[in-house]
Amino acid sequence: MRVLSGIQPTGPFHWGNYFGAIQQYVDLQDQAAEAYYFIANLHALNTVRDREKLQEYTLNGAIDLLALGLKPEKAVLFVQSDVPEVSELCWLLLTGTPMGLLERCVSYKDKMAKGLKADAGLFTYPVLQAADILAYDSNIVPVGEDQIQHIEVCRDIAGSFNHHFGETFVMPKAKVLDSSARVPGLDGEKMSKSYNNTLAVFDDVKAQRKQIMRITTDSRPMEEPKNPDGDVLFDLYKLVATESQVADMTALYARGGFGYGEVKKALADAAETYFAEARERRAAWAARPDDVRDVLKSGAAKARAKAAATLARAQSACGAKGY
Amino acid sequence: MRVLSGIQPTGPFHWGNYFGAIQQYVDLQDQAAEAYYFIANLHALNTVRDREKLQEYTLNGAIDLLALGLKPEKAVLFVQSDVPEVSELCWLLLTGTPMGLLERCVSYKDKMAKGLKADAGLFTYPVLQAADILAYDSNIVPVGEDQIQHIEVCRDIAGSFNHHFGETFVMPKAKVLDSSARVPGLDGEKMSKSYNNTLAVFDDVKAQRKQIMRITTDSRPMEEPKNPDGDVLFDLYKLVATESQVADMTALYARGGFGYGEVKKALADAAETYFAEARERRAAWAARPDDVRDVLKSGAAKARAKAAATLARAQSACGAKGY
Repeated sequence: MRVLSGIQPTGPFHWGNYFGAIQQYVDLQDQAAEAYYFIANLHALNTVRDREKLQEYTLNGAIDLLALGLKPEKAVLFVQSDVPEVSELCWLLLTGTPMGLLERCVSYKDKMAKGLKADAGLFTYPVLQAADILAYDSNIVPVGEDQIQHIEVCRDIAGSFNHHFGETFVMPKAKVLDSSARVPGLDGEKMSKSYNNTLAVFDDVKAQRKQIMRITTDSRPMEEPKNPDGDVLFDLYKLVATESQVADMTALYARGGFGYGEVKKALADAAETYFAEARERRAAWAARPDDVRDVLKSGAAKARAKAAATLARAQSACGAKGY
Repeated sequence: MRVLSGIQPTGPFHWGNYFGAIQQYVDLQDQAAEAYYFIANLHALNTVRDREKLQEYTLNGAIDLLALGLKPEKAVLFVQSDVPEVSELCWLLLTGTPMGLLERCVSYKDKMAKGLKADAGLFTYPVLQAADILAYDSNIVPVGEDQIQHIEVCRDIAGSFNHHFGETFVMPKAKVLDSSARVPGLDGEKMSKSYNNTLAVFDDVKAQRKQIMRITTDSRPMEEPKNPDGDVLFDLYKLVATESQVADMTALYARGGFGYGEVKKALADAAETYFAEARERRAAWAARPDDVRDVLKSGAAKARAKAAATLARAQSACGAKGY
């Protein structure tokens, strides 16, 4: 049983990334026989058209994952572009992928619907993703709901290749991540970089505290009870506070007689505590970037061995090798 | 000055391929400082969805080129899929290629206009072609008129990458092949595999003779003069006969008093003579397929060295390496 997950290095990870995905797929490293995690810098190229930024986000993405609990002795961590076999496989798959399959993909359709210009990289992105998944004979791919369609596309592509050229690829399955934990952004909308409402996982503690203190709240007087349902502060607090802290806060909301400033302070304190260990690990890795590069290098070597075997199988099946 | 040319191994080469392209670009090996020729098997995958056929066409394509005068000591001959760097470069380029640029490509538009289903490989084919061209810092790309648009697309892609990320790619120029030599098919239409009217360059001599004897001619009586303009036999004869033979045949047509059977025999004889040396070389190479593979292997090594340097430049420019 092999689990695969990739994350795009398009900027610092925020709470939405962490509680919605990273936390859950890092947990999987202990359940699966093998776990492969990669920094999807080739996908990120579609949006990060800046050399220094892409390089910075790539290394920082790896540091963040290590800080957040990914263990290099348990999981294979690598950078997508360090496995050339994936790009080779991508072309083989492109030749058998009907245009209609990609035209129906929501990520592309949404962009078109908004009247935005798309690049061929965005359009063919599900095929590179399929190559990522198939290259490592991945059985389980943990994804958010918005990515289920891409796993279906991958299965379509793999199934049609297998059918035409003989059994070559392992069919992957999506494991849909639990999205029940609501991660609101600072403005109450879903936390997302495109809404500019994020709390970074590893921001400077003081800066983050300031950010939290500026969250807009309702204008209920201090003495009144407050409603925790849909309350941004309360929802964020639930993610980082202990169970007993949450129980206390629930009681406080019901009682009233406090200001939101108090809640904000409690939230900032709890966040600091919650990420304290990760923050320490992060500082330690960040101080040794060459060690991080070594982890990635050794991860890439393992990933390449696996991908090379799959690619050889695919090339031989379709006749792109063996002339 | 580096010349690059690729040919798709989609079946045995015919006279149209030879007189319209191969003959001319093989000649270029003596004019250019460096000449790179490759068997474009990754492009062929778009149409040849058969393992054995693709393998056979790939090796035979190389044998045919060697037989037709390509000299491995002068030119670098290799198979496209033996240079993984090209697939890697292809993805980098896809991320910056506007959809509109590919949607306007005639090869894709034609297929759509005919109501045929297209695959993403056909749609993105000009981007892989651009990667082929740019990987080797090609200066000159000899092409037929129908491929000029793709060279323009390549220049657009390279220009926009250079503009955004800094000078990375050498700008290639198309050298339009002389298409004045009319190569009619057996039915008088343009010779093309899709019209099923081809004369193979290396068919069995007897089979070819039979094929020629079956060409349909007009029903003018023997004694009448014949019109050489637009006459299939005469047009084909001009390609393979010597100057004095053509002069004699011109006089004969004007005089009349002969049957087309005589012309067919003369054509078959001239073809046999014209390709005799190439046929001998072909037999010699075909008897030593491992030597052909060695030529291709050594060609691929040279091509990879060049492509790896270009890829490294491109990866570093856009930040896909160097994190």
